[in-house]
Amino acid sequence: MSPASVTINDVARAAGVSKSLVSLTLNERPGVKEETRERILQVARELGWTPHPGARGLSLRRAYALGLVLRRSPRTIEVDPFFASFIAGVETVLAERGNVLVLTVVPDRAAEERAYERLAADKRVDGFLLTDLLADDERIPLLERLGSFAVSLGEPLGGSPFPAVTRDYDAGIDELVQHLVGLGHRRIAHVSGDERMLHGRRRRERFETAARAAGIDPLVVPTDFSPEQGAEATKALLDREDRPTAIVYGNDPMAIAGMGVAHERGLDLPADLSITGLDGSQIGSFVYPSLTTLDNDPAGFGLAAATALLRLVEDGEAGDVALPPARLVVRASTAAPSGR
Amino acid sequence: MSPASVTINDVARAAGVSKSLVSLTLNERPGVKEETRERILQVARELGWTPHPGARGLSLRRAYALGLVLRRSPRTIEVDPFFASFIAGVETVLAERGNVLVLTVVPDRAAEERAYERLAADKRVDGFLLTDLLADDERIPLLERLGSFAVSLGEPLGGSPFPAVTRDYDAGIDELVQHLVGLGHRRIAHVSGDERMLHGRRRRERFETAARAAGIDPLVVPTDFSPEQGAEATKALLDREDRPTAIVYGNDPMAIAGMGVAHERGLDLPADLSITGLDGSQIGSFVYPSLTTLDNDPAGFGLAAATALLRLVEDGEAGDVALPPARLVVRASTAAPSGR
Repeated sequence: MSPASVTINDVARAAGVSKSLVSLTLNERPGVKEETRERILQVARELGWTPHPGARGLSLRRAYALGLVLRRSPRTIEVDPFFASFIAGVETVLAERGNVLVLTVVPDRAAEERAYERLAADKRVDGFLLTDLLADDERIPLLERLGSFAVSLGEPLGGSPFPAVTRDYDAGIDELVQHLVGLGHRRIAHVSGDERMLHGRRRRERFETAARAAGIDPLVVPTDFSPEQGAEATKALLDREDRPTAIVYGNDPMAIAGMGVAHERGLDLPADLSITGLDGSQIGSFVYPSLTTLDNDPAGFGLAAATALLRLVEDGEAGDVALPPARLVVRASTAAPSGR
Repeated sequence: MSPASVTINDVARAAGVSKSLVSLTLNERPGVKEETRERILQVARELGWTPHPGARGLSLRRAYALGLVLRRSPRTIEVDPFFASFIAGVETVLAERGNVLVLTVVPDRAAEERAYERLAADKRVDGFLLTDLLADDERIPLLERLGSFAVSLGEPLGGSPFPAVTRDYDAGIDELVQHLVGLGHRRIAHVSGDERMLHGRRRRERFETAARAAGIDPLVVPTDFSPEQGAEATKALLDREDRPTAIVYGNDPMAIAGMGVAHERGLDLPADLSITGLDGSQIGSFVYPSLTTLDNDPAGFGLAAATALLRLVEDGEAGDVALPPARLVVRASTAAPSGR
């Protein structure tokens, strides 16, 4: 066993105590009897324990904090239905264990890199939650270089040494398209989200695959995921001569904005137009007609990601986590086309 | 000038340099010429500068972090239209200045106190943003005792030594009630929010005052601010024999849920029922009919609070900030009652 691969598990086993006693001791936290503390420290020294290969030579102290660096305009946080729920899920785990979340929003790639470097070097966080994966994401090599711990939401394209929390949307999107086709729809459009984000792109690609499998020529209008652009895309689609009888939106706020446009034009929903979201948000069950969508669980994502990251920080190892796949939630906003 | 009252302003003036150079020097940050650094440190020593009376004896180091401790169920973060936008506003300020936000969610009063004590004692944050003020809020004396900096959203009932960021809703609520009365409504109900929170209680009281001033007997149904309870309250109101012709909801998600209930019952909106929110959220302009409400600016709240708190941390002093008062936004969800 090389010193670099020694985990607090090993120390706990060798010292014959619990992992949490080892963690408390190595992090100089109160609550450990002096005698026990000394035994643990001796065993740790003998085994050559370090918190992480990349962090050798740094303090053994833990920050009791996880980091979330968002490269976005702060404005996009306001309209993202995922964000607040994800934070809520993360905090469920952190609150129980006396950890905090360090949140920082940066405008560009250079500031993002500085933020990771500063938080890692000052040991202000024990690891990072990686959201908003991009097609050409440079954070994985950066965090490897910094010797940081991290857990990503979704699987990075270029592979990653860090655990990923994933959720399959493919089967749900297939089910959604089949639901619409089964109702008799042949002109089905997709108002897609930001193509630079992996999840936006993957959902659009799967929609196209599912549509083609059903013998339908997919019609796609790209947006930035905002309700403003969702409304604009709806207007453009409804202006077409061969206007769609059903629209699948990349997220629920766009779907709700699309409903507003359709109502304003005097369409009878869902007879004149079926509308669906793709990431069940809470408000979707309260609008009229209530929104057919895929179920979503941003809080579950946050919970799983924070749990995996804390495990990685404490044990030096944690596996991938696959959340239950997204399923179709049929409500009142989809029906057979009226044929008018 | 007693040492306790010396600010970095005073040091800057005496040393003939800018405030930011003093801040960088006293916080051991790079970017200050050695000669300047030495002069500043000498002047600071001569003046007996300390970062804050309560923090005397502690390190002069800054954490470059602000703290936000929420005593809530994490679940309530998901449904709160204020939270994500407020965070976005805070981050706008922090991102520009290389600061981070330390966020922690705690379940009860004891955990809340421990969180403040730990973050303050370990100097993990430079100060706290105080949201969700309660009628019997104990955080003000706690933070005074800890010698921490803080800025509150709203004016605490028992007074406070800390700056407050306030916004007047009274004139807006008056305007809203007068708008409904002017349209001919006489049976106006209010679905109010959580009474333990000062802002929920104050809005309910002002609604009652404004209704009585218009010669109307106010009808109030209390809730916890959630769309679920907003929907339930709407059902109860529509079941009444003397059902209201207009409902004023304590927040926009409840109003949207109320619209869903009304639509389901086959009511024609707004002819059969006028509906308003009280805190303009983004989605309210996209629902059908688009929602009459008071404008709101959670991001502006976050921006003002973070700015004031950083000023307090850096200069040792900052004044109250009054945001522009809330104004009525008339959209399509209010109209004269049809009289059916």
